Amino acid sequence: MDVLEELRKFREMDIPYSRVLSSMCTVPLEIAVKAHQMFINTNLGDPGIFPGTLELERKLIKMLGDLLHCETPCGYICSGGTEANIQGIRSARNIKAKKEPNIVIPKTAHFSFEKICDILRIEVRRADVDEAYRVDVSEVESLIDENTVSIVGIAGTTELGQIDPIVELSKLAEEKDIPLHVDAAFGGLVIPFMDNPYPFDFVNEGVMSITIDPHKMGMATIPAGGIIFRNEKFLKALEVETPYLTTKMQFTLTGTRPGTGVASAYAVLKSLGFSGMREIVKMCLKNTKILTEEMTQLGFEPVIEPVMNVVAFKTERAEKIREELYRRRWVISAIRNLSAIRFVIMPHVTEEVIKNFISEFRKVI
Amino acid sequence: MDVLEELRKFREMDIPYSRVLSSMCTVPLEIAVKAHQMFINTNLGDPGIFPGTLELERKLIKMLGDLLHCETPCGYICSGGTEANIQGIRSARNIKAKKEPNIVIPKTAHFSFEKICDILRIEVRRADVDEAYRVDVSEVESLIDENTVSIVGIAGTTELGQIDPIVELSKLAEEKDIPLHVDAAFGGLVIPFMDNPYPFDFVNEGVMSITIDPHKMGMATIPAGGIIFRNEKFLKALEVETPYLTTKMQFTLTGTRPGTGVASAYAVLKSLGFSGMREIVKMCLKNTKILTEEMTQLGFEPVIEPVMNVVAFKTERAEKIREELYRRRWVISAIRNLSAIRFVIMPHVTEEVIKNFISEFRKVI
Repeated sequence: MDVLEELRKFREMDIPYSRVLSSMCTVPLEIAVKAHQMFINTNLGDPGIFPGTLELERKLIKMLGDLLHCETPCGYICSGGTEANIQGIRSARNIKAKKEPNIVIPKTAHFSFEKICDILRIEVRRADVDEAYRVDVSEVESLIDENTVSIVGIAGTTELGQIDPIVELSKLAEEKDIPLHVDAAFGGLVIPFMDNPYPFDFVNEGVMSITIDPHKMGMATIPAGGIIFRNEKFLKALEVETPYLTTKMQFTLTGTRPGTGVASAYAVLKSLGFSGMREIVKMCLKNTKILTEEMTQLGFEPVIEPVMNVVAFKTERAEKIREELYRRRWVISAIRNLSAIRFVIMPHVTEEVIKNFISEFRKVI
Repeated sequence: MDVLEELRKFREMDIPYSRVLSSMCTVPLEIAVKAHQMFINTNLGDPGIFPGTLELERKLIKMLGDLLHCETPCGYICSGGTEANIQGIRSARNIKAKKEPNIVIPKTAHFSFEKICDILRIEVRRADVDEAYRVDVSEVESLIDENTVSIVGIAGTTELGQIDPIVELSKLAEEKDIPLHVDAAFGGLVIPFMDNPYPFDFVNEGVMSITIDPHKMGMATIPAGGIIFRNEKFLKALEVETPYLTTKMQFTLTGTRPGTGVASAYAVLKSLGFSGMREIVKMCLKNTKILTEEMTQLGFEPVIEPVMNVVAFKTERAEKIREELYRRRWVISAIRNLSAIRFVIMPHVTEEVIKNFISEFRKVI
């Protein structure tokens, strides 16, 4: 059998996105795929060879900085939210230079923070959340001590799409002189395009770094994560010397690094513009409402009123429902610690997808 | 201006591979690009959605395991050599569980080990090398203490393409009961295809993990790094719980993870086969010889007789030569601590490229 034919057979075993209501990734825009192909041979790990791609990345970082209200944005396009969060925390850890560092994060933070703390050898302290699943700022304060090197707030939690009180966290961070890292991997390209957006970004003086992933709601190709620092100081805390490359220092976590994410993220943001992004976000929020209404009619109550295009519904049978749907090649999430089923209403989750899903869902329950 | 037109202008500023003699990456094979495109929407970070891509990865890992003489290979395709090395060392660190861990690496190890030790909070001890730039095993031994969690050997050093005495390192590792990690990011897909290959792999009982990057000599698309462990125990030491994904545990460093590297690496190895790879390696070694002869005629002496398709030549003017060539849009490396200029003779460095380069090089010196 021809190799490409063989690959096609494997690819056909995958579940198409039109049946996936649980992923924070989506089908990239057509222009993103075209841009990706144009940059498929690029390697930003050796930027002297790719000065054009590097320049494009600078433009994209500036664009993201504008979006996040930062005049001196520093950062890069990385493998994804985990690398971005590692780098945000690592920078703070290196600057603070404590012997037994800890960070304070919300209980609702992404599970990768467990991984990050193992990798960076940092103690993780999890602060409780209020009834709306926003972190309790007074509890964050009580967990801080002289070894705390970073506070983390989430703008768009993975499980519920909730936004932590970043304004208050920032005040606390300033008061305690501890860098605040905002994980906006998902929300970073949603919130700015909503009506009356919550001020989650560098507009707050205590925010020193933000994770914002173009390969999630930015509809870029994978991999395209993003880490943006308030200024150069935080990037410099990550640098190591390179003895033979075209540049003398390297601040990225990885070495070899594709330029495809830079090109595809830039292509999407530039071609859609902020108004185009607003339309997409509006559509996702409308579809979230449609799904929520359908589910409510079927007797399922949302855990919280959806804040963005993520919604979860209470049910004791979460895992069973998920499994049965999976057997029928439909993918949703079960949140084990909340006894809930969860949906992410990405651009590929259209009204038609929702209609098809609900019709299957009725059979399952 | 049209966005794609704008992107094209940036891309044209990049230096084409036909003028790059310093990179361990290359132009991917055509079949790799085709495979990449077929898998462009895949995300192995949520493998339940992509069971076909996951199955393909298992086949590829098995294929790499066969190549590396391991019957129970465990691992995954990652962002590149740095992630692979992080994971190899992190696994050993977690298994050994020392309060103040250290690792012993050759002085010739890739600069990313500095980064890795910062990230993982591990002390790095650098052992000296012999006159052929192979690590001195007795010095490695003298640097080991009760807090040593890993020994590192290199199969294909970045600067000279040298191979450390892995056989002796493995014996030492077994004796001391310390996992040996082999960084074969480059050499892993060169050495097995050479005549009388040096036994650098799992054939040595002390070797517990190997870095092997398909996006280097595997001619796959970026990103496609590889980390292979001897058995499941080492992979399990990396796991964290995932509260809502289609799988319950995650051992990768990143979360979202493209399947493109899996598909492109598989496509290359499957279509070329071991015999096709042997032909490619043979050609690169022949071209290395041609370049070395040309350079010798121009009065440049190699630092060591080339072991594989990497070669460096002594010169006090290394940085000046590099800069002047770069001004003319030719890229080579200057190795600062060796006072040498360095070349990597990848598949794109054809006889014609060498001819063109030498003609330009004559003008520069």
